[in-house]
Amino acid sequence: MRLILLSGGAGKRLWPLSNDYRSKQFIKASGADSIESHSNSTSMVQRVWAQLKELQMDRFSIIAASRSQEEILQAQLGDEATLVLEPCKRDTYPAIGLASSYLHSVMHADPNEVAIAMPVDVDADEEYFKAIMRLGEAFDRSGARIGLLGIEPRSASEKFGYILPGEAASIRGLRSIAKFVEKPSADKAGALIEQGALWNCGVFAFRIGDMLERLEKNGWPSGYDQLIKEYERMPAVSFDYEVAEKEEQAVVMPYGGSWNDLGTWDEWTAKLPNRMNGNGYLGDDSPNTHVINELQIPIVVMGVPNVIVAASPDGILVADKQASAKLKDAVQSVSVRPMYEETLYGWYRIVDVERDDRGHQVLTKRVHIWKGKHIGYQMHFHRDELWTIIKGRAQVVINGDVRQVSAGDVVAIRAGTKHAIRAVESIDLIEVQIGESISDEDIVRYAYDWNNRDSHNGTEKGGANE
Amino acid sequence: MRLILLSGGAGKRLWPLSNDYRSKQFIKASGADSIESHSNSTSMVQRVWAQLKELQMDRFSIIAASRSQEEILQAQLGDEATLVLEPCKRDTYPAIGLASSYLHSVMHADPNEVAIAMPVDVDADEEYFKAIMRLGEAFDRSGARIGLLGIEPRSASEKFGYILPGEAASIRGLRSIAKFVEKPSADKAGALIEQGALWNCGVFAFRIGDMLERLEKNGWPSGYDQLIKEYERMPAVSFDYEVAEKEEQAVVMPYGGSWNDLGTWDEWTAKLPNRMNGNGYLGDDSPNTHVINELQIPIVVMGVPNVIVAASPDGILVADKQASAKLKDAVQSVSVRPMYEETLYGWYRIVDVERDDRGHQVLTKRVHIWKGKHIGYQMHFHRDELWTIIKGRAQVVINGDVRQVSAGDVVAIRAGTKHAIRAVESIDLIEVQIGESISDEDIVRYAYDWNNRDSHNGTEKGGANE
Repeated sequence: MRLILLSGGAGKRLWPLSNDYRSKQFIKASGADSIESHSNSTSMVQRVWAQLKELQMDRFSIIAASRSQEEILQAQLGDEATLVLEPCKRDTYPAIGLASSYLHSVMHADPNEVAIAMPVDVDADEEYFKAIMRLGEAFDRSGARIGLLGIEPRSASEKFGYILPGEAASIRGLRSIAKFVEKPSADKAGALIEQGALWNCGVFAFRIGDMLERLEKNGWPSGYDQLIKEYERMPAVSFDYEVAEKEEQAVVMPYGGSWNDLGTWDEWTAKLPNRMNGNGYLGDDSPNTHVINELQIPIVVMGVPNVIVAASPDGILVADKQASAKLKDAVQSVSVRPMYEETLYGWYRIVDVERDDRGHQVLTKRVHIWKGKHIGYQMHFHRDELWTIIKGRAQVVINGDVRQVSAGDVVAIRAGTKHAIRAVESIDLIEVQIGESISDEDIVRYAYDWNNRDSHNGTEKGGANE
Repeated sequence: MRLILLSGGAGKRLWPLSNDYRSKQFIKASGADSIESHSNSTSMVQRVWAQLKELQMDRFSIIAASRSQEEILQAQLGDEATLVLEPCKRDTYPAIGLASSYLHSVMHADPNEVAIAMPVDVDADEEYFKAIMRLGEAFDRSGARIGLLGIEPRSASEKFGYILPGEAASIRGLRSIAKFVEKPSADKAGALIEQGALWNCGVFAFRIGDMLERLEKNGWPSGYDQLIKEYERMPAVSFDYEVAEKEEQAVVMPYGGSWNDLGTWDEWTAKLPNRMNGNGYLGDDSPNTHVINELQIPIVVMGVPNVIVAASPDGILVADKQASAKLKDAVQSVSVRPMYEETLYGWYRIVDVERDDRGHQVLTKRVHIWKGKHIGYQMHFHRDELWTIIKGRAQVVINGDVRQVSAGDVVAIRAGTKHAIRAVESIDLIEVQIGESISDEDIVRYAYDWNNRDSHNGTEKGGANE
């Protein structure tokens, strides 16, 4: 058996703490004083991975993630997890297809092996993971082509799809599926629940070879190297829609144990040990209100009950907990750019945005580089980068010359200059990016051997953004 | 007649838009997109001063203000208004005493002249200022020692003191005073209003010589030069408490026209033309809610009615409009440092606060200098200042040498270096302050003649902070 953890999601439902680079599963929020001190708490993906290890299920698990999540996944899980990186965001059908082709082409999984895809952003106990195992085993013996896990509903929620089971299948614990109902109204959901319907929690069992056949039938290559090249052309369509709901030989295993997707602020805050998180004041006159403040400035809340107040460098949310379920729509309407990003080397926060005299954007960032980590050797054609070191010690490479810098030093990197920095001790700096254009694409990367400087020749190199 | 405009107030009642440097009367909030674009709107003090000019009352008006307000007053009013600056914050009794001694000692006002002290943070129309004039004239003929303006109450508010008038005085429009009641409960206020009580709006008429006698009777000098030296030793006590409430020969003039102190967020927001001010989203599901956002990041508000959401570089307030009247207490409990300050040369905003390896504070500021303005020639013993110019053009003086700087330039000013900057065009820069201590006191000021550079010798000079 193989497990595919799906780490997708545009992550707007917990805005402003989630963004395209920092989805729900990466947020660490327990009792944090500010965003920089989160390193001591645990994110959803870290907790799920720890649970899998506990049950030794990590051995056959891989993570299907967006390329933009690579750095944060490595930062949070180290090198333990195998990552299958989607070159661009699509949906669960392409993601599961790519992961299946990876399992077969790269990891040489048998086409007959059962794989189970599940969302990585889940809050559950051991029972849930054992149910995943039971689903895999029962499905293996069932003769069905798709197997789902169905959560016994606790409310007539409007945010889930529902699965109405039919008759009992031949294998114990499995039921056939009468129909799927996509996000019904509360009334309809209530009626479905009376008929025994279950929540669709996005867990799918299938045979790897079967999935590869589906890809080919739809005109896609099943080999990993070919599929990743064509990935961009694949449709943004869900596995539910494209596969599960069309499949007649589908079965579902009801599950009544712990499970929560913490998909809304209401659910998310219910798990927090403290109501006030971060700098500020929350009075007794605001019952059932939660504050999560990742900013340095204080938040004062007075006389406002049942509300979530969340602040990050990306923005500030003030929402009734029930209303916050519709957050996705509201956030569409504001200009949202990620102001904080965790990276492989540390993190950065945009502290100021301005336009210069000619209308070109000027960005000021606070950058943190963990001890021993570095920002790779690179060059920009169209912008200067002006660094003021405020803390720590680092080696800076400028056009091949190495120098030591520490607090109070200034480094002016003009456009066209090759540069790199490595933190000897954890280092903090203020970076001003200024020039005729500021763009993630304006970067040329070079190899640099930090251990053997003299051998370095500055050979050009491709690769992902750092 | 003389008018003393009192520009005091710690200014916490409209936190986070007001702070010790930027009190309520200086806030410009009408339809602003961000704090930097406020220059087009009008503050309370600007509006009041324009109203006085319209009635030609500015000719005999002075402003009693805290020294920390000098720069913002000059920035907002120019050189038009005479300022009497208190060396430190006390209360209305010392402030009115100091202003009276200034009127007599410096401006040679006749001791028999009537002066009227009134708060500068008032929202009213012409009728109010005419009532002030009538009060002065009636008081002059009354034989009383103190004359007050009493506002006819519109509600049983708990935030005002009440004046219960007695019998009619000999002069038309004036009444004797039966008693003062300091901030009663709503019930008590209602009963007082039924008896004809008035709101005490902090307007006091008196004879200048009489006030000077009161000072002397209490053991204080009445000459300005002496009094300002002893000002620090004066008690922080209100004119109400120390003078008005003890005075038997006090009269009050009822006033039924327009008047509002805009002293709470509830009243303040009622004057705003728009409910959403600044970057963000405010849905229809939040009736009677106002958002004032001076930050660059967006605020999203969903399903929260009757609330004020105010965000500035100092902090973020989320408060029920009624509850916000008690804001002063809540703000006491959070660490509040002014993160934004308007200055004589422009403004600055603290964008990052960190401690370096040795635990010393490192401040990063975004600084704006208006075209033609300068930051005076100065030197710091204990900190470096590292400037990255992001916009505009300026002349920088370093130890007597002048150079031109523009966007992309870096200026490293080490501790012990004399420096100054003048904006040739409006200039923006990122300043990192780093060193063994960051303190407003660590400054030595020098004279510098921008028009005749060569004659400059760098003579040491005292003076207020710039």
